[in-house]
Order: sequence, then C-alpha cells, then structure tokens
Amino acid sequence: MAIKIEKNREFLQDLREAIKAGDEKRALSLINDFHAADIAEIYDEISTEEARFLYLLLDSEKAADTVAELDEDDREEFLKHIPSEVIAHQFIDNMDTDDAADVIADLSVQKQQEVLKHIDDIDHSGDIVDLMSYDEDTAGGLMAKELVVVNQTWTVLTCLKELGRQADEVDEVYYLYVVDDDRLLKGIVSLKDLAISKNTTIISNVMKTDVHYVTVDDGAEDVALMMEKYDLVAIPVVDAIGRLMGRITIDDVVDVIREEAERDYQLASGLTEDVEHSDKVFRITRARLPWLFIGMVGGVLGALVLARFEGDLKIYPEMAFFIPLIAAMGGNVGIQSSAIIVQGLASNTYKIDGVGSKLGKEFMVALLNASILAILILGYNLLVSDSFALTITVSVALMAVIVFAAMFGTLIPLLLNRFKIDPALATGPFITTANDILGLMIYMLIGRVLYGVFA
Amino acid sequence: MAIKIEKNREFLQDLREAIKAGDEKRALSLINDFHAADIAEIYDEISTEEARFLYLLLDSEKAADTVAELDEDDREEFLKHIPSEVIAHQFIDNMDTDDAADVIADLSVQKQQEVLKHIDDIDHSGDIVDLMSYDEDTAGGLMAKELVVVNQTWTVLTCLKELGRQADEVDEVYYLYVVDDDRLLKGIVSLKDLAISKNTTIISNVMKTDVHYVTVDDGAEDVALMMEKYDLVAIPVVDAIGRLMGRITIDDVVDVIREEAERDYQLASGLTEDVEHSDKVFRITRARLPWLFIGMVGGVLGALVLARFEGDLKIYPEMAFFIPLIAAMGGNVGIQSSAIIVQGLASNTYKIDGVGSKLGKEFMVALLNASILAILILGYNLLVSDSFALTITVSVALMAVIVFAAMFGTLIPLLLNRFKIDPALATGPFITTANDILGLMIYMLIGRVLYGVFA
Repeated sequence: MAIKIEKNREFLQDLREAIKAGDEKRALSLINDFHAADIAEIYDEISTEEARFLYLLLDSEKAADTVAELDEDDREEFLKHIPSEVIAHQFIDNMDTDDAADVIADLSVQKQQEVLKHIDDIDHSGDIVDLMSYDEDTAGGLMAKELVVVNQTWTVLTCLKELGRQADEVDEVYYLYVVDDDRLLKGIVSLKDLAISKNTTIISNVMKTDVHYVTVDDGAEDVALMMEKYDLVAIPVVDAIGRLMGRITIDDVVDVIREEAERDYQLASGLTEDVEHSDKVFRITRARLPWLFIGMVGGVLGALVLARFEGDLKIYPEMAFFIPLIAAMGGNVGIQSSAIIVQGLASNTYKIDGVGSKLGKEFMVALLNASILAILILGYNLLVSDSFALTITVSVALMAVIVFAAMFGTLIPLLLNRFKIDPALATGPFITTANDILGLMIYMLIGRVLYGVFA
Repeated sequence: MAIKIEKNREFLQDLREAIKAGDEKRALSLINDFHAADIAEIYDEISTEEARFLYLLLDSEKAADTVAELDEDDREEFLKHIPSEVIAHQFIDNMDTDDAADVIADLSVQKQQEVLKHIDDIDHSGDIVDLMSYDEDTAGGLMAKELVVVNQTWTVLTCLKELGRQADEVDEVYYLYVVDDDRLLKGIVSLKDLAISKNTTIISNVMKTDVHYVTVDDGAEDVALMMEKYDLVAIPVVDAIGRLMGRITIDDVVDVIREEAERDYQLASGLTEDVEHSDKVFRITRARLPWLFIGMVGGVLGALVLARFEGDLKIYPEMAFFIPLIAAMGGNVGIQSSAIIVQGLASNTYKIDGVGSKLGKEFMVALLNASILAILILGYNLLVSDSFALTITVSVALMAVIVFAAMFGTLIPLLLNRFKIDPALATGPFITTANDILGLMIYMLIGRVLYGVFA
C-alpha cells in the first residue's frame, strides 16, 4: 500500500535508456506512481536534458509539485532553457502561490514578466505578485494565499459548501479562517469542530477566538519558534491592521528549522555556504577556502608572535612542545562557550538574566574546567618533565588561556547578537584564530616570567 | 486576540508574591490565560516548591499539558515529591498516551507501578503500558494511541458520528484511519474529504489508499525524514503485519529534528551532552570536560612528538613558529570534510555513489585548497622569511597536511556510519586531535628532510 521506492542502479539504467530512446510511454510508466518528492530526487542522478524530457511528460499537477521540490540551484538550471509559456502552463498554473512565488523570484527579471503574463488566472498571478513583495525570511515570504476563508455570519452549512467549493484549490485544509466583512481575522474553526457541529449553527459560535497568529513582517525564525512552541500545523498571517493575508503550514516551517540548524552547523564546522558532497569541486572549494584562509592568516600571526619570542625558544626549546596544546585548548574552550550561547539564542531560551550573569557563570565553569585540567597536566609534567619552570609555566598558562577563551567565547556571540549579526559566526574561525594567537601570547609571556623565577 | 505574553520581572515578582502569600486565587488569575507551553516556561524562573503550588492549582487538563511541556530533567525534579495518586489524577489522566508514556518512563520503577495503578481508565493505562514497551528512538516510541479509527464498511455519516464520539479524546484530528475487521490499515480520509462527501457514501470510496506509513520499529530519524520529504502532518504506524497501532504527529517529529540537529551541533562544538546555559555549573562542566580532556591528551601526545624533534628545534628554532599554523589547518580541514559527510548522512542524500568516489572528490577539493593556500604562504615567506628551507618546508608540509586531513576527515565518519556509530562523533575532538598530532609529525619530518637539502 505504501510507496516504497528503490531508486537503484537498475531502475536508473532502465529510465535513462527509455529517455535516450525517446520512449515517452515507458519513461512515464517507470516514474508515474512516484511521489513528486521522489521524482525530484531523481534529478541528481540524470542530466538536465534528461530531466527536462521526463518532467514535461508528467501531468501538470505532478510536474508542478516536482519542480517545487527541486533544490533552488537545480531548479534554476532546469528552467533556464524552458520557454516562459511552458513554465507558466506546465508548472506555475498548478503550483501553490508560495511555491510559485519562490520559483518565479529565482528567474531573471525579464523572464519573471513573461511567465507572469502567461498565467491565465489573474487571481493566481495577482497572489503571486503580492507574495513576491515580501522578504523571503519573513512570515509574508513563507505564507501561501491558499486558505479557506468564511464570514463570521455564515452558518456551518454555508461554510461546508464554501469548503467544498474551495477544496480543489487548497490541498491541505486544517482550519477555516473566520473573518468579518473587512477581512479582519476573527477566529479559526478546526475541521473537526466543523464536521461535528450542527448545520444551522452560526460559525462564530463554533470558532476559537484566542488564535495564535503572526504578522507579515515577523521573522521566519520567530514563526518557526512560535509554531514549534504551540504545536501548530498552520498559522494565519495578518497585516498590520489584522486583515487575513495568508497562512503558513508546518512543512515550510520544518524547512526553515532544518536550514537554520544546517547553517549554524556549517558555521561551527568552518563552511561559509550551504554545500553538499554532490556539489561540484569548485563550489565545495569556494565554501571552504575563505575560512581556511582566515585560519592561515591566524597561523601567520601566530608565527609572528612566536618570532618575537625566538630568543626564549632558543634558550628553552622545550617550551615549543606545548604550543599545540595551549593553542588547541584555547580554541576548544572558545568554541564550546560560543556554541552554548548560540544555541540558547537560537532557541530563544534567554529571557531574563543579563550579560553579567552569563559571564559570571561561564567564569565559574571555566575556572572549574581549568583547575582540573591544570592539575592533571601539572601531575603529568612533574612525573615526566625535567624542567620545573616548564611544568609550572604550562599549568599556569593553561588555566589563564582556558578562562580567557571562555570569557571571549561567551562575549563575542552576545555582542554579535546585540548588533544584529548572526551570533553563529562566533563559532567560526575568528574565535578560534583569535584565541590561538592570544593564547600563544599568554603562554610565552607567562613562560618568560616564570622561567625568570624558576630556571 | 492572540496571546502575547510578557514574562517580565514585574510579572514574575507579582506571581512569586502571590505564591508566597498562598493566594491561590491571585496566582491562578495571573497565569490562567496562558498557554501550557508558556506556563511551563515559567518553571525556570521559580523554585520547584513554587512550581508545585502553582501547577496543582491549574485545572487538570492544563496541568497535564504543562507538565508534558516541561524539560525531562525539570519534570523529574518536579514530580519527585508528588504522591503517585496526584500524579495519576492531576496529570496522567488528562495526558495523551505518548506524553503519558514518556512521563511515566522517567519515574522510578516502583512509582511507575503506583501511578499506573491509580489511573482509573483501564484503556488509558493499557495504552500507556503498550507504548512504554517501545524504544524511545523508534516510531513506536513516538506514536500516540489517540486517533480516530473507522471501519471500511461504514458510511460517511457513521464516520462523522464516530468522529463526534471520539472528538473529546483526540485533540487534533487531521485524518480518519480506515481499517478492516482485523484492524489492518486500508486507507486514510482527510477531514476535508469527509466534510464534503455525501452522508450515504461508503467510506472506502472516499479514502486514499496509497498511504505513507511507518512500522513500529522504524527509527525516529527515518520517520522524520519521511514526514519531512512528503510534507505530512501525521503518519499512521502499523505493526509487522499491517495492523494500525497509532499515529505520529508532526509536532513530535519537529522535536526529533531539532534534537538531532542540536546533538550534531554540540558534537561539532565539543560538548558531550545536551546542555543549556541555564543548567547548573557542575552539569555544564561535565558536558565540556571530557572533550577538553581528550584535547589535552592530544596536546600531550603532540608535545611527545615535538620532543622527538628537540634536536631539530634547537638548530632551527624558527620551525616552531609555524607549529600553530600547521596544527590549526589540519584540524580545520578535517572538521570541514567530516561536517559535509555528516550532513549528507543525516539528510540521507547519499544513495548511489560509493566511498571511492567520495574520497576521490574530496581529494580534488583538498588539492585545490591546499595548492592555493600553499602558494599564498610560499609568497608570504619568500617576502618575509630569511630561511629558504623554512619557506619550502612550510608550504610542502601545509599541502601534505591539508590533503591528509581531508582524506582522514572524510573516511572516519563513513567508517563510523558503516559500523552503526553516530558519524557526528567524527567532528568531535578525536579528528582534530589525531590531525593535530599527525600534522605535527608530517611537518617535522618534512622539515628534517628539506632542511637537509636546502640549509
């Protein structure tokens, strides 16, 4: 009963042969039972020309869904050589307005005009143009215009009829949205409540009035946090004066959550753009090189710092042994501290306590970690090292570097956030690099002082 | 109309004063209009005793929702001193079965028995016991027993009546699940289709038969991927022979996605357990110390490696200058490579190409990055450094370390995944530490050889 798909080599070979032979019937029969999301996945395994042949065979409902499922980059490539008229009729006509607006927004300005002109239903193209005016990271950019709207004065029976009338247009209906004559949102009715209410009841007596909603300018991440917190599958979007403008469904919000998480993860791992292993070598390189370059600049600065201490290193070459340890620990502690702050900011769990209390707590944690690790390395060096000066230097420097890195790693994301910059940037190479350099300075300076005392 | 909450200091002060004075009426009036998720958030700002006073005032429906929203740790603490009978009647009786099973599973074995015995509705406690038998990371562990089931022979009218009968029990209804006399899942009917169908139609003529479903033993992450891919708000769960066992709703899956992303992020940032800034100092320390310890062991091993080259460092102390650069670049490249593989594995985008092709591509990317960076540092050192041997050594070693780290960072998560270990572990300190040490060895060995040639 369920559709379990094996997109194995054999299937792909069959499909590509059918495409190569121009055998439309066979190609269609191979993919016709698949869900659009599955057909979209095949895109990665075939050429753009093959995909064009294939997707133009689909009935236009499924073709539209398939193109909506494609990655942005893939879609741009796919649509590049398809005439505007075909894009309009084969794909956009059958797409939900939110998907249609996303797809059209990625086209060249000229092609946007052409495609919009070819859409026959003026309501549909009007809705799309409206949606294209919103920033993609706002509720307006996420919402669709497809929703079932009823007037607060209607009976349940009238609402049921309206639902039947609009049912073709709106794929997934979870709620009816109840408005007044000015389209001001007054309440929502779940389909369950609609279905079990008496036909003659006025809908405003069935509706729920304490409704969670967002306004068109609310940020996408705030919408996600709200829907997540209150376990909503759809949320109405209103304009500044409360008129119903559209609705956002949970599937789009799941994508926002996933993308946000991936971006933070990429920043923490030193990648500057969304990149997958299937991307081209050049693109992967472009995503990775910038932060490696920053790391290298940091390394060069580190070399300059150490060059200032060349005299010390000549006399006490064993000081060089612990350079990697000091640098690594500074970096590790800094990233940990930043990551905790970044996660807290992302999930919006900080509300009442201020910067001071965060730094204070982080100081305690760092002091505890630093003490334990400094004592361990002290014990190790007392057993192993010949140089008491080195032993003391490493432990004291380790403590200093850990505490410093923790403060620095806590403060930077909070500062970035204060200045409306993505705090996740703090987990990137800047923090590690700055910590590396400052850690080295701390280590060498402490070494100079303590060697003076103990050696 | 919407509930906008200001949980500011003033509100909290009012609330705590009301609790302190034992003023039940005032305390209740302050929070009664809040959503359970908001009331649960107050928990962090008040003491456990205050929370107990407050949450026992709520009507039992909202009290149950609130306790279900609490963090696991908080909930355990909260329920510790509440008698089993109160837990059963004030909280569990009104909870959905999936939440109830989660809450009870966290209690001590003895308390579990007591609470279960105090649940009056034997169907409810039976369902909870059934659910507790599933691993929490499976579809069975995620699903709830609350769903509206209809027989395939029924008419739409009978189904509507059944919906009305069960409506109180099931909060959110998106679909009716159609079964035969053996409870084998035959199809689903959206409420929209139910609402717009004629009362006399047999339900099996309205239902959709190509249904996405999962079985009780499917992994939670697979369920999440499936619901995400096909944009589902609820998915039925069947047993090994296709009998309907429950349903999973998207809100629980959003939690799975969020948790999975957070875990990966934490591993990439060197945290070993789920930790928030609001947690206690000791707990944060415990989450951070293990990987710092591993990093320190790596640093010590690095020191041992460098000690083997003490002779070289004495003659060429300037070699020490670039130790941080080499170590940092190895670590950075390794993490980048691992992160790309980890993300690909998590979003399940790898299907057809094998390990060989991944390593081959990674090799090309690494070679490109390494060449660019090696040439840059070569240019820098030619301008700045007096030692041609050092100049050549740093560039050659940098290339070698980058390429090596990329291969290593690609292979490790693939290997972990092959052996069913979480590949995200690869982004932790093991990779960085191993890369640090091996990078240092490569650097010092290349230095020894090239200084022999050029100095």
